[in-house]
Amino acid sequence: MVIHMDNHQLALDSAFHALADPTRRAVVGRLVRGPAAVTELASPFAMALPSFMKHLRVLEKDGLIRSEKIGRVRTCRIAPKALGEAERWIAGRREEWEQRLDRLGDYLGARPTGGEQDE
Amino acid sequence: MVIHMDNHQLALDSAFHALADPTRRAVVGRLVRGPAAVTELASPFAMALPSFMKHLRVLEKDGLIRSEKIGRVRTCRIAPKALGEAERWIAGRREEWEQRLDRLGDYLGARPTGGEQDE
Repeated sequence: MVIHMDNHQLALDSAFHALADPTRRAVVGRLVRGPAAVTELASPFAMALPSFMKHLRVLEKDGLIRSEKIGRVRTCRIAPKALGEAERWIAGRREEWEQRLDRLGDYLGARPTGGEQDE
Repeated sequence: MVIHMDNHQLALDSAFHALADPTRRAVVGRLVRGPAAVTELASPFAMALPSFMKHLRVLEKDGLIRSEKIGRVRTCRIAPKALGEAERWIAGRREEWEQRLDRLGDYLGARPTGGEQDE
């Protein structure tokens, strides 16, 4: 097991970092339903706009959202790739964990009847 | 959309924070295959043991692993609940995103044939 600090690892670092905050998760939760202007995104939060903008910048830097300014309106949309990579990483670990439980279950299930079965 | 800083949000904050580091992800990736002693966990990493122990403490504090010391050996194992909650959160967002794409696809697919359909 050697750890390569490759782009994929960096992308996962960023995605999980972005998701480790309830405001940022709420923004992602809003944007999966469609694009939204910054003012609309900010309105549910009891937070000063500069603080909220900081969260948006983290989300954009970490690759979870994109934004585009047209005239005076900045519109944000989800960048689904990072979310997908984070999900696949966790799902892969969960599958390994479940396979281990299955093997353990087979072993424990087989044990009372005798010692003939191979694991 | 009101954000409650409840236990579930705190658990998600912790889980995603723990996963935002390649060493910690590698430890999780090892422990889903079965428990391991700290010395075994540390061996693949070119990192001083105190630094590595810091990562283990973060993982334990953030609820992703448990550890138990018997005699002089501390053994770590996965605590799968936090991983499951993190996965469910992302999967829920991805499903909403896909539903939106489906509706968009229906809309775009329907459009050329006329303007009668509602979105």
